[in-house]
Amino acid sequence: MSRTVFVNGEYLPEGEARVSIFDRGFVFGDGIYEVVPVIGGKMVDKAPFLERLKRSLAELRIDMPMSEADYLAMHQKLIELNGIDEGGVYSQITRGVADRDFAFPAPGTKPSVAAFTMKKALLDNPIAVKGVKVVTVEDIRWKRRDIKSVALLGQVMAKQEAVEKGGFEGWMVEDGYVTEGTSSTAYIVKGDTIITRPLSNSILPGIRRKVIKRLCEDHGVKLEERLFTVDEALAADEAFLSSATTLVMPIVEVDDTRIGGGQPGPVARKMREYYIAAIKAEAGIA
Amino acid sequence: MSRTVFVNGEYLPEGEARVSIFDRGFVFGDGIYEVVPVIGGKMVDKAPFLERLKRSLAELRIDMPMSEADYLAMHQKLIELNGIDEGGVYSQITRGVADRDFAFPAPGTKPSVAAFTMKKALLDNPIAVKGVKVVTVEDIRWKRRDIKSVALLGQVMAKQEAVEKGGFEGWMVEDGYVTEGTSSTAYIVKGDTIITRPLSNSILPGIRRKVIKRLCEDHGVKLEERLFTVDEALAADEAFLSSATTLVMPIVEVDDTRIGGGQPGPVARKMREYYIAAIKAEAGIA
Repeated sequence: MSRTVFVNGEYLPEGEARVSIFDRGFVFGDGIYEVVPVIGGKMVDKAPFLERLKRSLAELRIDMPMSEADYLAMHQKLIELNGIDEGGVYSQITRGVADRDFAFPAPGTKPSVAAFTMKKALLDNPIAVKGVKVVTVEDIRWKRRDIKSVALLGQVMAKQEAVEKGGFEGWMVEDGYVTEGTSSTAYIVKGDTIITRPLSNSILPGIRRKVIKRLCEDHGVKLEERLFTVDEALAADEAFLSSATTLVMPIVEVDDTRIGGGQPGPVARKMREYYIAAIKAEAGIA
Repeated sequence: MSRTVFVNGEYLPEGEARVSIFDRGFVFGDGIYEVVPVIGGKMVDKAPFLERLKRSLAELRIDMPMSEADYLAMHQKLIELNGIDEGGVYSQITRGVADRDFAFPAPGTKPSVAAFTMKKALLDNPIAVKGVKVVTVEDIRWKRRDIKSVALLGQVMAKQEAVEKGGFEGWMVEDGYVTEGTSSTAYIVKGDTIITRPLSNSILPGIRRKVIKRLCEDHGVKLEERLFTVDEALAADEAFLSSATTLVMPIVEVDDTRIGGGQPGPVARKMREYYIAAIKAEAGIA
């Protein structure tokens, strides 16, 4: 069955959802995106989702194309039209349609909006029970990775390389240090301490990262924000990643090295439980 | 009057030329582009244009969507349909339409093609008589700038900053050295020697740069391929840039420093003449 998607004010079958070839998203990668998880038919991590969306737009000086309430209502309508119980909603805002010129178009040019749903098992994900493999790849991206832009060619090439090497995800490496996954945040565990890279222009400020940090405080789990090398990752007791659609995902292999005996570790499993409990509470699921 | 443009096999009014919101050009910047100059209704620098197009596609492992002959014929048809005497043709090839996933879509996914013309005075361009100002901006782009990809957000932000500071173009600077313009190659002149950055992954292999290098050999002009700093540019005797639609463009100001007394210099003017003579010969214009 074809999805109903949203594009510039209209709800359309996905096969009919189109944008101009002059859309700056198409010719320049000049736009931003977000993915918000859905459980029990409801969006979760809604507040940090809107906050990061607005931050990305502000950094690129793209206007918010509709009110926050209308943006959320459009998301909720897509969830209902497509009968999404679990999964996510992807949305993208670009600088709009204008004759091709690198400089910004005339003030008043309307940003473009496109959004669509994804159906995906988030809570009872069999992959999370077994854990995944990540493959390290070179991080060749630009210097403003804190902006969630659609100019994602670096991530595309990195992910493809990781997949071809048998990885579920690629961990990008710069100057010997892991920056982040191609579409996830990277963590290792040493003893009882979670280690993750501090926020900067080198990584995306992960929403799950933010929630995990709060959950560590709530539950008395030690979290250290510092750079870590590939060698440290290979020698770690555990590793995991987080993103909108994997939530908290244990890692059992980095390159060809088994982590924690090839089994999801206790800290990663615990953090996944805490995170799932938090979003269930937000969605009002018992 | 509305242009007729090309998109995925069809010639359409520009207002009706659309691509799917699932096109990987739109969601990932996963595609490449080219601009070929047109004079006297004919494409020029045609051979290096096709060569670079194929190189960019190969680097990203995107298939050439049609034969070279058909690609050129499509361009020529757009030139004729739109009555282009002077200007250029922009064309873009993306990895095609697929459900959103960073990794490459299934083999056989058809690349998308879009193309449109630009009407512009190239030969008798009044701007070239006066010369232009460039503004230095930080180069924050990714590490594969040799691929002419549509993931151009770094260039967009750099160009906008340059325009806001009164520049015709931005010269991007990395580690104190000028890399290139946001959509042009950068040159300075010291005495009778042209200086331009050597080819590497740090810059696009400019087609005009390639032709200029050959013209220097033909006409006995010294050209040195080496890195140059912003300070060297500010103290240079001349400066110029090159691109598909500016050809060879004298620079008379870098940031707030006048170059060569604020007048286009003799080397830049000579190179523009040589270049124009070369493309006129290719187009068969007397």
